[in-house]
Amino acid sequence: MRFKTGTALTVIAVMMASQGLANEELREFALEMFSPLPSTVPALNDNIVTPEKVDLGKALFFDPRMSASGVFSCNSCHNLATGGDDNMPTSIGHGWQKGPRNSPTVLNSVFNEAQFWDGRAPDLAEQAKGPVQAGVEMANTPVNVIATLNSMPQYQEWFRASFPEDDDPVTFDNFARAIEAYEATLITPAPFDAWLNGNDAAMTEQEVRGLSAFLNAGCASCHSGVNLGGNGYYPFGLIEKPGAEILPEGDKGRFAVTETVGDEYVFRASPLRNIAVTAPYFHSGVVWDLKVAVEIMAESQLGAELSEEEVTDIVAFLGALTGEVPEVTYPVLPAETASTPRPTGEVIVE
Amino acid sequence: MRFKTGTALTVIAVMMASQGLANEELREFALEMFSPLPSTVPALNDNIVTPEKVDLGKALFFDPRMSASGVFSCNSCHNLATGGDDNMPTSIGHGWQKGPRNSPTVLNSVFNEAQFWDGRAPDLAEQAKGPVQAGVEMANTPVNVIATLNSMPQYQEWFRASFPEDDDPVTFDNFARAIEAYEATLITPAPFDAWLNGNDAAMTEQEVRGLSAFLNAGCASCHSGVNLGGNGYYPFGLIEKPGAEILPEGDKGRFAVTETVGDEYVFRASPLRNIAVTAPYFHSGVVWDLKVAVEIMAESQLGAELSEEEVTDIVAFLGALTGEVPEVTYPVLPAETASTPRPTGEVIVE
Repeated sequence: MRFKTGTALTVIAVMMASQGLANEELREFALEMFSPLPSTVPALNDNIVTPEKVDLGKALFFDPRMSASGVFSCNSCHNLATGGDDNMPTSIGHGWQKGPRNSPTVLNSVFNEAQFWDGRAPDLAEQAKGPVQAGVEMANTPVNVIATLNSMPQYQEWFRASFPEDDDPVTFDNFARAIEAYEATLITPAPFDAWLNGNDAAMTEQEVRGLSAFLNAGCASCHSGVNLGGNGYYPFGLIEKPGAEILPEGDKGRFAVTETVGDEYVFRASPLRNIAVTAPYFHSGVVWDLKVAVEIMAESQLGAELSEEEVTDIVAFLGALTGEVPEVTYPVLPAETASTPRPTGEVIVE
Repeated sequence: MRFKTGTALTVIAVMMASQGLANEELREFALEMFSPLPSTVPALNDNIVTPEKVDLGKALFFDPRMSASGVFSCNSCHNLATGGDDNMPTSIGHGWQKGPRNSPTVLNSVFNEAQFWDGRAPDLAEQAKGPVQAGVEMANTPVNVIATLNSMPQYQEWFRASFPEDDDPVTFDNFARAIEAYEATLITPAPFDAWLNGNDAAMTEQEVRGLSAFLNAGCASCHSGVNLGGNGYYPFGLIEKPGAEILPEGDKGRFAVTETVGDEYVFRASPLRNIAVTAPYFHSGVVWDLKVAVEIMAESQLGAELSEEEVTDIVAFLGALTGEVPEVTYPVLPAETASTPRPTGEVIVE
C-alpha cells in the first residue's frame, strides 16, 4: 500500500504496520474498532418490541397496499430475498420514476446511528415514514395509509394487540413503530461475528489477511462499530474527488440536511455488513464490482493505492460480513373490504 | 329467484328446486358438481415434482431479476400474501404500463384446465413463459433470463439438482417447469373442502344455504369441478351482455386464440376458490364488490334476478372457498455476479 497524501488516518496504518499479528492480537485490536452483533434485538427509542408488534410490522413491511399504486411494499426496495436491498443503481418507484439514491439494505440497519445516506432520519421509525410518502417511491399519504389500515378489521385487531395502551392505536406513528420493531429483528450474524467472538476457524486465512489489510489501510476510521459503518458522516472524496458519474454534482448529500457548507458531498459512511450481496455501490449506485468500489474508496478517502493482493484480500474479508438472514415466513395479509381505498397508479405532478 | 329467460341451465335449478335438502343429500349432489382438493400435489405433464425442483421454482417465483427491470417477480402480480393475485383492476408492469386483463390467482391454478383468461396456455409451465416476455409485464427475453441464471453458480447448482438427467439443465423450458412445480404446491384447502369431505360443522348454516342457492341458480353449470371454474369456456353475456365498462368491446377473449367467430367474448369461467380475497372481479377487474359480481353473473349468464337473501347467502358460501395458504418461507436468493446482466427499466417500443 502506498499513501499518496499524508492523513490522520495513517496513524492507524502505522499502528497496524507490523504485519503478521497473531490472531489474538488482531482480534484484540479489531474489537476496539468493531463489535459483534448482539444475540438479541436491541432496545428501541420509545418503542417496546413485542412479538405482536413484530408480526404487525412484518405484515406492513410486505404489504404493497401501503403504496398508492398497490405495486410497492417496503420489501420492494429492501428485499429480504436479495440482501435487504433491490440490486439496482437507484430504485424504480411510482410512475416508473427513479429514486435519487441507491437503496440501502434494511438488514442490521437498526444498528446505524441514523438512517438514509444523509442521516436525515434519526431512527427506523422516522425512516419508515419517508418512502411511503415520497412521490417517486410509494407516493402515498398518511391519511390514505390509515384509511387503508382501518378498512381491514384484521389490521385494526393487530394494531390493538401491538399498542394495547393506546385508545386509538391505528396511527401513522404506530405504523412506523411497528415497521421499526420488525426491522430491528433483521439481524444477520456473519462469519466475522463468530471470529470476533473467538472462533478462529470462522474466517479463512485470506479473510483474516483481508481484515488486517482493511485495518492497515485505515478503512476502519470510517467503517467501524457494529455495522462497520453507518455511524458517522464523511465527505465523499476526502482526499480525491471521484468522477462525476460516481459523485454526481447535483447531490450534495448531508448539506441538504444541515445546510452547512462543510457538509457538501458529505454522506453517512456505508455500513459494510452484507456488502458483497448488495451491489451496486455508493449512493449513486453506479459501481457493480466490489473490487472497484474498494479501490475507489482507498483512493478517494485514504489517498492510498492498494496492491492487487490487498484489494483481493479486503474483498474476501468483506465477504465474511455476509450474514445469515433470519428465516421469514411470508405473511398472509388481510383482504381488502368495501371501504379500502382503491389503488391508483396516477402520477400527480405538483 | 326469477329467471328472465328460459335456459338449459334451469334443469339444474329444477333438480334443486326442492328446498331444504338434508345436508347429506346436498353433499351428494354437490359431489357430482365439485371435487374437494386432493391432499397431495397433482402429477404434472412431463414434469416430475421433486423437493429440489419445488425449491428452485420458489426461488424463481420470487426473483425480481427475472424481469428486465429487476422490479417484478411472478409474486408481484400473483402475490401469495394477498390471495395469489395483486388486487388491482389490471396489473402495472414494465414502464408503468397497464396489463390488458385482471391478474388471476396462482393459488390452486394447477387444477385449471388451461391458463390465462382465454385459456391460451395449456399448463402452468407454458403460462410461466408468458408474463416474463410480455412487454407490458416483465419485458424480459429467454436469452436474458438464461444469462441471468447462468451468471449465478448457486442457480446452476439448483438447476442441476432439479434436472439431474439433463446435460444442460439451465434452459427456459426448465425454468418454466420449475415454476410450474412450485405453483402446483400452492393448494389452499378451504372450509368447503372439509364440508365436502363430510364435516357438517365446517360450513355455517348460511354458507350451506348459499351453496344451495348457488346450485339452484345454476352457477355450477360453469363453475364446477375442483376449482369451481377454470374448466370451460363461456360467452360473457350468455343471456345479457353487461355494460362496456365490464365487458370492453376491444377484448374479444378466446376469439384471439381460436379465431372462431363463436368465440367472441368467450372467456374461461373464473375459478372461484379464494374469490372473496381476490377482488376486483372479471377479466376487466372493474367490479370490487363480490355481491355486485354475483348479481352481474346471475343476470348476464343465467338471466336470473336473485333475491337479496340469495345473493348474500351465495357470497357467504363463496367465503367458504377461502382456503389456507401453505406456509411459505421467503427465499434467500443467490447474489449477482460480475456477469449478471444489469437491470434496465428502459421501455423499448417496437
